[in-house]
Amino acid sequence: MTGVTKFPARVRIVEVGPRDGLQNESATIALADKITFIERLAAAGLQDIEVTSFVHPKRVPQLADADELLGRLPRTDVVRYAALVPNMRGLERAIKAGVSRIGVLTAASDTFNRKNINMNTRESITALGPLVQRALEQGISVRGYVSTSWICPYEGPMDKHKVAEIVQELFALGVDEVSVGDTTGGAVPAQVEATLDRLLGVCPGERLAMHFHDTYGMAVANTYQALRMGISTFDSAAGGLGGCPYAPGASGNVATEELLYLCDRLGIETGVRLSGIRHASDFIGRVVGRTLPSRVLATGAGTEA
Amino acid sequence: MTGVTKFPARVRIVEVGPRDGLQNESATIALADKITFIERLAAAGLQDIEVTSFVHPKRVPQLADADELLGRLPRTDVVRYAALVPNMRGLERAIKAGVSRIGVLTAASDTFNRKNINMNTRESITALGPLVQRALEQGISVRGYVSTSWICPYEGPMDKHKVAEIVQELFALGVDEVSVGDTTGGAVPAQVEATLDRLLGVCPGERLAMHFHDTYGMAVANTYQALRMGISTFDSAAGGLGGCPYAPGASGNVATEELLYLCDRLGIETGVRLSGIRHASDFIGRVVGRTLPSRVLATGAGTEA
Repeated sequence: MTGVTKFPARVRIVEVGPRDGLQNESATIALADKITFIERLAAAGLQDIEVTSFVHPKRVPQLADADELLGRLPRTDVVRYAALVPNMRGLERAIKAGVSRIGVLTAASDTFNRKNINMNTRESITALGPLVQRALEQGISVRGYVSTSWICPYEGPMDKHKVAEIVQELFALGVDEVSVGDTTGGAVPAQVEATLDRLLGVCPGERLAMHFHDTYGMAVANTYQALRMGISTFDSAAGGLGGCPYAPGASGNVATEELLYLCDRLGIETGVRLSGIRHASDFIGRVVGRTLPSRVLATGAGTEA
Repeated sequence: MTGVTKFPARVRIVEVGPRDGLQNESATIALADKITFIERLAAAGLQDIEVTSFVHPKRVPQLADADELLGRLPRTDVVRYAALVPNMRGLERAIKAGVSRIGVLTAASDTFNRKNINMNTRESITALGPLVQRALEQGISVRGYVSTSWICPYEGPMDKHKVAEIVQELFALGVDEVSVGDTTGGAVPAQVEATLDRLLGVCPGERLAMHFHDTYGMAVANTYQALRMGISTFDSAAGGLGGCPYAPGASGNVATEELLYLCDRLGIETGVRLSGIRHASDFIGRVVGRTLPSRVLATGAGTEA
């Protein structure tokens, strides 16, 4: 392409469709369909798949089958199946289910945290301490998430210095990676640049993941901005599955298909095959009963002859 | 935002929905609906609207009412209504209809030109000479278009030096602006950067417009790349209307809504109101009978209380 920008040689895709995507679907999805979806994602070459959340079943009924799901996924050394864990009770369920990797969540916004978990950001990080410790003792690796890292639906723009502090505190707890989330999808690349510039001053880029939602169509542009800055881990959802309960009509995570298309055209390796993702997206699109928002999917690209 | 990148203070949006968008719709659209759509676009603050094409009615039946449409649009000093003109016969129709601005088209790809107009690129530019001259003599300003500036569906990647030559030749004919088109929507920002870097070596950025399609979800990222490089004129279509006959399932031009969202968040003025564009998009979406692809539109943003 161009000789100016140096992109990462390889991008690691963390597929979050089964969790971040499906948790927002109104249709009830059968366990067998979730497993088929996840198996197809793995067959496409994805090695990091966030499959569910050990949240209270009443809070997210869509993921109430977390324990059984984990039990029925094929054991493999190639694919890491991860699950979100909101609290100690969820962690005990995750341990019992044999999870090898968990994600723990806080948000940059105090108000967002308070509305969701009834704690402010400081209290939430304090509460994560024993959780992370217990997981690590059990040989479970931990990923941290920071929601609303750019914009809070209640507070508006977030302070990049505060986001950097939270990221540092999560690393201090023992997480090996922090996924920095644009929960509302409202960020634009210039804001991604500013926050990322700050974050790269406090931790190596290899330990950061970007988690962009495509609510306003900015996710690919934000991804490209992060790639330019050397970020090599991105969360995405097959088909662009999902949505944000706080933004009506919002589309979900950046589509895995779009991420693949971009990486492919930039000569960046992912180890993931578009035809395999299409195979998974076509299936889950039929299950949820709607056209998934991925543009690449709509073109028919990746259809096997 | 960030202090590093200097964006243009103002972006000029050239709305191409009524032409590039509607020409690809399968439903027949009534003249009155086209006029309502265009009037709403103008009311939203758009000052450059490409309303139709004086192409042979048999070739694009959707735009067979070009003459009548121009005759029925309100005369105004604020809004420039432009029309595409493929040949001398079309120009005579345009002159008769009282058009004040036309667009003339060629493509970077010889094969693409040959398939569409039965001439190679060289022959096509030669043929445009008398056309542009006749228009200018009539006091009609002329915009040039270069289709397939990055990727040709038949030939593949295009040579940026060849694109630069074509742009220079169009300026030499007397056009005041060249719209550089990613017809298939296949370009990624690194390719936009490389070609634009070359183009900015042969002409001032103020005389270039970018015309991105969102087939693979790259249009906003490509727009941002061009903004970073100082480009301040962008073609877009309300709602993301349109499509490309060469890419099945493809979405259309970058949505005017997404362009507005991006500019607004970057502090760039456009003079265009999102609520006004929504008013136009909601209308034309009902007329064409489908959900338009704009993400911003889907969120409900710009809905007036």
